[in-house]
Amino acid sequence: MSISMYQASVPAFVRALNVLSALLKKGEEHAAATGGVPDVLLGARLAEDMMPLTAQIQRASDASKLTVARLCAIEAPKFEDNEASFQQLQERIANTIAFIESVPEAQFDGAAERDVTLSYGSFSQHFTGQSYLLTFALPNFYFHVTTAYGILRAQGVKIGKLDFLGPFN
Amino acid sequence: MSISMYQASVPAFVRALNVLSALLKKGEEHAAATGGVPDVLLGARLAEDMMPLTAQIQRASDASKLTVARLCAIEAPKFEDNEASFQQLQERIANTIAFIESVPEAQFDGAAERDVTLSYGSFSQHFTGQSYLLTFALPNFYFHVTTAYGILRAQGVKIGKLDFLGPFN
Repeated sequence: MSISMYQASVPAFVRALNVLSALLKKGEEHAAATGGVPDVLLGARLAEDMMPLTAQIQRASDASKLTVARLCAIEAPKFEDNEASFQQLQERIANTIAFIESVPEAQFDGAAERDVTLSYGSFSQHFTGQSYLLTFALPNFYFHVTTAYGILRAQGVKIGKLDFLGPFN
Repeated sequence: MSISMYQASVPAFVRALNVLSALLKKGEEHAAATGGVPDVLLGARLAEDMMPLTAQIQRASDASKLTVARLCAIEAPKFEDNEASFQQLQERIANTIAFIESVPEAQFDGAAERDVTLSYGSFSQHFTGQSYLLTFALPNFYFHVTTAYGILRAQGVKIGKLDFLGPFN
């Protein structure tokens, strides 16, 4: 048995976006419990020239929604990147999950062979859908989820590796 | 067309381990150029109660070699976790890649349905091979590669997102 493009992407994204939501909730509780200013946590970074927590969550949202959209040759919803609170970031995550879950599995027919072209600044690359998912989209998505986790840990939020891995049935 | 268990694991691991090697090389060059003590960089962490750079690399090595071993029901080579220099960590990565590349693709026959049981301290979980790879092994592996990257960035090593994504043909 082999893995469908749908199975390798949609459930993995939804799972990790739910993890991100739970991590963010623990961050919010930590800020409240320690008298921290929420904006300080949302603006925290691992390095001065890296993106802050808010942007890591926005990029995890984009990375997942755009992967699904590209693999299925459909439009993803646009988000304005104007989230400025824990509540708004939670809504962003929920809206991302809602879009991803709205795409029927049948829409992924042919996704492995689909031509995907990315172009960001100096980066331009042609992929098949399969190579895009496995060599770019999944590592890029997990990069942002992990970096959000790392920022929260570095800021003293009491989370551990099991929170990153998430619940298993 | 769908993705084989081999394709979803081996090339992704090898690719990201090569990325990790290149990141580590940039870390070593940075330490040399700035007069930094290599041990300081290798011992750097994102949070006091997180693992240092050396351990993130060891865990990325274990996460990838053990995934392949579990999916194929074979033994992975044992490493002693005694690496104490950039050179030794590079050898660890190279030995990990050598093992992963030594496993024939045919060994992955039946890997998706294979029973995989993990047990670490309070964490115990049964998986099919496919759910293990997609919901545990890949996020866990990318967690350690990304955290190694984050430590290097937080320590001032001049790397960027394209270094994490790695070269594309």
